Amino acid sequence: MISRNTVWDNIDKVRGSGPVVHSITNYVVMNSTANALLSAGASPIMAHAKEELEELVILSGALVLNIGTLSPAWIESMRLGASIAAANYKPVVLDPVGAGASKLRTSTSLSLLEEGGISLVRGNASEIMALAGTGAATRGVDSCNDTSEAEKSAKTLAKKYRCIVAVSGCIDVVTDGDTVYHITGGSEYMPLVTGMGCIATAICGAHLAICEDRFAAAVSAMGCMAAAGGVAELASNGPGSFAVQFIDALHNVTENDINRLVEVRVV
Amino acid sequence: MISRNTVWDNIDKVRGSGPVVHSITNYVVMNSTANALLSAGASPIMAHAKEELEELVILSGALVLNIGTLSPAWIESMRLGASIAAANYKPVVLDPVGAGASKLRTSTSLSLLEEGGISLVRGNASEIMALAGTGAATRGVDSCNDTSEAEKSAKTLAKKYRCIVAVSGCIDVVTDGDTVYHITGGSEYMPLVTGMGCIATAICGAHLAICEDRFAAAVSAMGCMAAAGGVAELASNGPGSFAVQFIDALHNVTENDINRLVEVRVV
Amino acid sequence: MISRNTVWDNIDKVRGSGPVVHSITNYVVMNSTANALLSAGASPIMAHAKEELEELVILSGALVLNIGTLSPAWIESMRLGASIAAANYKPVVLDPVGAGASKLRTSTSLSLLEEGGISLVRGNASEIMALAGTGAATRGVDSCNDTSEAEKSAKTLAKKYRCIVAVSGCIDVVTDGDTVYHITGGSEYMPLVTGMGCIATAICGAHLAICEDRFAAAVSAMGCMAAAGGVAELASNGPGSFAVQFIDALHNVTENDINRLVEVRVV
Repeated sequence: MISRNTVWDNIDKVRGSGPVVHSITNYVVMNSTANALLSAGASPIMAHAKEELEELVILSGALVLNIGTLSPAWIESMRLGASIAAANYKPVVLDPVGAGASKLRTSTSLSLLEEGGISLVRGNASEIMALAGTGAATRGVDSCNDTSEAEKSAKTLAKKYRCIVAVSGCIDVVTDGDTVYHITGGSEYMPLVTGMGCIATAICGAHLAICEDRFAAAVSAMGCMAAAGGVAELASNGPGSFAVQFIDALHNVTENDINRLVEVRVV
Repeated sequence: MISRNTVWDNIDKVRGSGPVVHSITNYVVMNSTANALLSAGASPIMAHAKEELEELVILSGALVLNIGTLSPAWIESMRLGASIAAANYKPVVLDPVGAGASKLRTSTSLSLLEEGGISLVRGNASEIMALAGTGAATRGVDSCNDTSEAEKSAKTLAKKYRCIVAVSGCIDVVTDGDTVYHITGGSEYMPLVTGMGCIATAICGAHLAICEDRFAAAVSAMGCMAAAGGVAELASNGPGSFAVQFIDALHNVTENDINRLVEVRVV
Repeated sequence: MISRNTVWDNIDKVRGSGPVVHSITNYVVMNSTANALLSAGASPIMAHAKEELEELVILSGALVLNIGTLSPAWIESMRLGASIAAANYKPVVLDPVGAGASKLRTSTSLSLLEEGGISLVRGNASEIMALAGTGAATRGVDSCNDTSEAEKSAKTLAKKYRCIVAVSGCIDVVTDGDTVYHITGGSEYMPLVTGMGCIATAICGAHLAICEDRFAAAVSAMGCMAAAGGVAELASNGPGSFAVQFIDALHNVTENDINRLVEVRVV
């Protein structure tokens, strides 16, 4: 049974073991996701050159693929990275930023899923719906739709590609295709800071690196985000100060904060 | 008559309607401009792949082109983006970062202007002077020259390319080639934070997306920057805290702040 | 004799003369290093297109090469930039981010050193050990090893390539191959913020631009980092607020702060 204890245990393990997380990610969020990983206790690597992917994936505990600012050369790097990770039994998280908003984003995400090796997909509702074939085009990358729709799409996607799917929203949804967990907490400022979803994906990478049960890792990573978001909101006056406080909170969040600010329940 | 009321009305409209602003911009400012747009109430898209430009420009309310970290492939994307925007009657803002400092920057800016479809150019004095053919080489991208020179250059440029020109400086200058507005306010910290000009350009995109009168949109965007800068300075101890407070201020700025901190007048 | 007075003199000179520092650097730290340079009083240029390198290097006071997110095209730009800088007697700083973690990073750093024109290498212990041929593979780019080992490697590297070597760590080490300086100060938050090493490298560029004695420039730049880190820590609650306070501190740091918080001594 995954619970708030799991959230705390995994946060604590990341801090204790400092997993290396390799990201092939978008230009917009490289700085903020690297800072989030460092504050959470992980060690970020950002690299996309095909010449060095094998060495870097091998020394990492997880690989994060994020399609936020795509180009053909980066797609090739992501594919190569995923195949190296699969060959070396490293978990891979995919963030399908903007899937549904363009054919390039949808098809790149789907082909990465079809080629295999993706342990976890972390997206918002419209992105997950687009990949499950149940959603209309997204409006930007920050849109939010009905949660029950997202849940159905998440289950479809998880079953089809045998992966965990985590959907960020007012209520976060995490599923392996059968069981569904809801995680609540966080802050209304989160959608007003660019890359909070990308940070969630990177934190998923850190939790996957230290936790063999990928379903538990996905839930604990989303719980970590919810706790840090809740702590940060109390010290914020807007999205700018929230972003700063959030990084502090990833470093400082306690078991008590999780118990106070986060709910984890099986649906 | 454009006034402080126009500034507030457009700030309020951006918050109410959440326009999508698509940026093909430089690596340095992607994160901070995305955060500025979100805080102002807009919805940012950052994408440069030619394969997806048509879909993304069509779902956006405005396109921002920023040449801060140029390369041949990105120039091609900007050209394609501008032509798609023109064909779909979407406003385009150009930020000629560093024009005058290299032939590549000057010629790229001028050819984008010559190909048409640019609604608004937002730059600093030396950049605008370089494009109008009246300035010497810039010293970096943060130099500041005499305002009356900038005004003359701005009018020349606006007339030649039938666009609005906004020049950031101690006093901001906005012109359609005939009428000139001055906007005062802001903070002395603004030139000490990288990308404040690029943020101004992005905010121009948001205002153009919700206001058909592009002259009014340019003035209101610069007025929004001036108000947020004034609010932020009061809570800052240096350029680092100013940057954070500025993002908060874009989210929180009120009509009263504008009346207190900003002047808008026709020259 | 290099001393705390040298640190203050060079900080003051950067503020007074505003040197232009051109960086060909990694995507992760472009924003934060540009902000650090601005806060310290310098004027940053970030540009990598071969078409404009000559013009921009010539108008700069120093060139920074940082291999954090490498690709073949960027390696070519770095090589071209270094050769233009050498031909124009501009100092060049190399930050061998992640050297030792991949062959691409190690060999790119070494070939830049072999081609000549590098005035200063600034790295962490594992990177310097990898380049000197004395270290094992780095674990990520944030690893820290024994200081005496680093010192030996730094001397070897400095002698071999006739450059200054600065090694960041709990105690910073700067050497010309013969004399060794230790700089202490800073904050335990520094390794928890991405790009603090890259910022140190950029500040080295600013100090090299205003100080002919490159050994003194390297020591004063590291002393500036140590002072700003010490000031920032007092106002921080975690790595997020530390990063903001650090940028403020670069702007505000006084001679008194240096005397209070930094030690500079010849070993």
